[in-house]
Amino acid sequence: MNIITQNLIGYSYSAEGTKTFSTFNPVDQSATPWVFKNATLSELKKATALAERAFFPYKSMSVARRAAFLRAIAKEILSLGEDLTRTYTMETGLPKGRAEGERGRTIGQLEAFATAIENGQYLQPIIDHADANRTPIPKVDLRKINEPIGPIAVFGASNFPLAYSTAGGDTASALATGCPVVVKAHPMHASTNALVTQAILKAAQDTKMPEGVFSCLYSNDYEIGSQLVQDPLIKGVGFTGSISGGTALFKLAQSREVPIPVFAEMGSVNPVVVLPEALNKNPTDWANAYAGSISLGSGQFCTNPGLIFCIQSPELDVFIHTLSEAFHQIAPTFMLHPSIHAAYEKDQAEFDALAKKVGSTSTQSPAIEGIGHGAIYQVDAKTFAANPRLHQEVFGPLSLIVVCKDVAELLPLIARLDGQLTGTILGSENDLQANETLVATLQNRVGRLIFNGVPTGVEVCAAMQHGGPFPASTDERFTAVGVKAMDRWLRPVSYQNWPDKLLPKALQNNNPLGLHRLINGTLIKD
Amino acid sequence: MNIITQNLIGYSYSAEGTKTFSTFNPVDQSATPWVFKNATLSELKKATALAERAFFPYKSMSVARRAAFLRAIAKEILSLGEDLTRTYTMETGLPKGRAEGERGRTIGQLEAFATAIENGQYLQPIIDHADANRTPIPKVDLRKINEPIGPIAVFGASNFPLAYSTAGGDTASALATGCPVVVKAHPMHASTNALVTQAILKAAQDTKMPEGVFSCLYSNDYEIGSQLVQDPLIKGVGFTGSISGGTALFKLAQSREVPIPVFAEMGSVNPVVVLPEALNKNPTDWANAYAGSISLGSGQFCTNPGLIFCIQSPELDVFIHTLSEAFHQIAPTFMLHPSIHAAYEKDQAEFDALAKKVGSTSTQSPAIEGIGHGAIYQVDAKTFAANPRLHQEVFGPLSLIVVCKDVAELLPLIARLDGQLTGTILGSENDLQANETLVATLQNRVGRLIFNGVPTGVEVCAAMQHGGPFPASTDERFTAVGVKAMDRWLRPVSYQNWPDKLLPKALQNNNPLGLHRLINGTLIKD
Repeated sequence: MNIITQNLIGYSYSAEGTKTFSTFNPVDQSATPWVFKNATLSELKKATALAERAFFPYKSMSVARRAAFLRAIAKEILSLGEDLTRTYTMETGLPKGRAEGERGRTIGQLEAFATAIENGQYLQPIIDHADANRTPIPKVDLRKINEPIGPIAVFGASNFPLAYSTAGGDTASALATGCPVVVKAHPMHASTNALVTQAILKAAQDTKMPEGVFSCLYSNDYEIGSQLVQDPLIKGVGFTGSISGGTALFKLAQSREVPIPVFAEMGSVNPVVVLPEALNKNPTDWANAYAGSISLGSGQFCTNPGLIFCIQSPELDVFIHTLSEAFHQIAPTFMLHPSIHAAYEKDQAEFDALAKKVGSTSTQSPAIEGIGHGAIYQVDAKTFAANPRLHQEVFGPLSLIVVCKDVAELLPLIARLDGQLTGTILGSENDLQANETLVATLQNRVGRLIFNGVPTGVEVCAAMQHGGPFPASTDERFTAVGVKAMDRWLRPVSYQNWPDKLLPKALQNNNPLGLHRLINGTLIKD
Repeated sequence: MNIITQNLIGYSYSAEGTKTFSTFNPVDQSATPWVFKNATLSELKKATALAERAFFPYKSMSVARRAAFLRAIAKEILSLGEDLTRTYTMETGLPKGRAEGERGRTIGQLEAFATAIENGQYLQPIIDHADANRTPIPKVDLRKINEPIGPIAVFGASNFPLAYSTAGGDTASALATGCPVVVKAHPMHASTNALVTQAILKAAQDTKMPEGVFSCLYSNDYEIGSQLVQDPLIKGVGFTGSISGGTALFKLAQSREVPIPVFAEMGSVNPVVVLPEALNKNPTDWANAYAGSISLGSGQFCTNPGLIFCIQSPELDVFIHTLSEAFHQIAPTFMLHPSIHAAYEKDQAEFDALAKKVGSTSTQSPAIEGIGHGAIYQVDAKTFAANPRLHQEVFGPLSLIVVCKDVAELLPLIARLDGQLTGTILGSENDLQANETLVATLQNRVGRLIFNGVPTGVEVCAAMQHGGPFPASTDERFTAVGVKAMDRWLRPVSYQNWPDKLLPKALQNNNPLGLHRLINGTLIKD
């Protein structure tokens, strides 16, 4: 397996640095064979300079060529075959099926963005015609279209080595809009990243993209990431990870001489509200579904259900009992990295001190190093309200059941929740109608409302909102998933009295791209 | 004339503070008769608490009611009659025609936002249908719609006492989306603001809006504005003003425990590039047009043309000579306030030391206090490149001509410009085609490109982009003018597997609002 462990700066590999690191195999608890050198500031500066130089030629080329580039990346990733899935499982401890699924998602995203830019509607063309006869002042002709903002820095996620890393949603959405990308690879899966980088390099050269459209830097310390976010040539940042990491990058970006937008998709406890009729009908079905959702991928998902609010009832006891039993049938799995595992064990110890444990995944004998043991806790509403620690995300297979006497006791807990990616309601339509205020209150804290489902499983489509009030994300007005993720890297530009034939095609009178356009206030395709 | 000089907190007037101030009449150089008391922190807290309490009922009411509220505000502003225009001219030194024009614009904006929400397309509904048969995992039903983000703080602008202040674009766009508003009135035109506040209060009560949908605070120091931006109940900020003021509020908002979006429309020098064929054809026409644009409103516009880049030629001498002559025909006018006037005189003295003065407006004898004397300067490209002071905005009737030997000398000057609201090109279509790189470089620095026109005059329409790369504004992805200004205060929310009849109307299967919706990737109205 040929893994190139150097930084990719435009079309050249480079390893000027001296500090090295390797990734870790959580299954056999040993370092992987590949050694990476931390990027230097000089390598970073070369990468951003090439990205800036590539910006004009890249954004100016035809949409067909950009789409071909995205599809070539997808093809090259698939061509990596088992080398990729083997490296992925080696660096994460996740099963092969997950690697294949995530590869499929990554490829699907690249293809979806290619299709979206070919469709052209993302340009959001708006036209207001001139009116020379208007009094007291004639009206000018104005036409507006979306333009890419410039080179984007992308930080790979620890928990999605493919779909939210090197060629993941942030990179694909930025490249689609016409923005070059400089990736800071996640140090926990640098080798997976290296293979994907090789795929992108080949795709870029085969489709004759300008050098600098993509670069990739390695580092296992914070310095190079901080420098990247502060580089004046970088115009936006995509990040998926922890609240502390995302907030630190966000603050750096806002304290630049020229602040830039940062879209950081950070933590979430994804509250679930169990309304009375949910348990009347199928307490055991929901118990089984949630045992699976809490433990899925060793709980290492940003949509992991970490908080389950319930109303006291005899059926609730059945639900908790069944959830506990179903959870115990589940074999715990490896966590991504010793540092993540250690953090999880520390969090569990904190919960042990604050809440009653009512469920755990099965235990092996002898104990296996690196396994994340699932745990379900229970508290009453007062204890929950009094302990801010219990409101915070635990990254791992852990969930907390909060038992309230009634909806009146539940409501203020929901109102005081931090911002969340998702909020789920289990119940009947009657429950929804009878609890209008509760639903509105939950909606105000989340990006996505789910009825009778589990929050894990983030569908990639235009109607997906993945992003919520802070700290779920740094800008709730945008999404990290689905074609609307491109809006993060776009800005509108108006043309006033511009000659028709020199306008971008989407704005020309005869509508050569066949787009829906907002013309004088009416959305039409003509 | 009944001007209520107290803070409006929901439906009650309040004046707990002790520190007072009055506004200033620049024409007779004296204080106006009305005395305002600075708001206290306790008054501010009452205003934001009422705004939060009003948020749910206000955003949940029918669009027809919100639209009726906006139209009632417009009607009440018009009903203020000459009281309003007289107070406006008294506090600004601007002529009555300008007051009437700006009132018309303010009313037009309120009506345009009312129409836009009735139209409903701003909700941007997106639907992706379920597919129970998809393998390996069935697809869920997802539907996305825009929701208001919560109470917004609006800071009135010094130079637009009506159109970008109390009931101006920021307030109208926020109220339209369903966000309550707390205004921090600009202390230079508090009395104008007080009249408009009275109009909004009457409109809110007449249309039975929830108390707290609008409040207005007075202060002539920075403290109350800082507190407002840091108040946890405030979810977004609209600001029009100086780079220093906007940047300070932006930094405060980003350093909150929960950062919030700030849209600050700040400074701009609005570069104009004069290409050769512009002067071959009509040097005198452009000279006359620019003499007017530079001096319009005593140069106190964010789109005032402060930089004019030209290429050396015999025709250029004619242009500069004619511009100078035309400029001298113009009678200078009052500036808004002694502090603005003093800053302008200081800026002029700095330019006197760095550049050659080639034009000035006519002078009166005896000198009149408070008048802003127009000035046009000239430098060569090297001097311009070497003096960052010459790149910065001067708020007043001042413009700088930068003479370049050729386009090659001009290009790097454009590339290194700060972000701008507008960039203008004077020339022929041939000029545009022959200077593709120059046009692309200018476009990359601005929000609006103008061909053969002047930057002053900001049309209120959907295709207007008013906002540009920092420091023109704090987020170039949004506009402050036109119906798209609502996007600043909206966030998407997804509904997963939600019962059809309980979805927002815009997302229901039978499309009761008759909207264009993106359904399974296709934009249709069905």
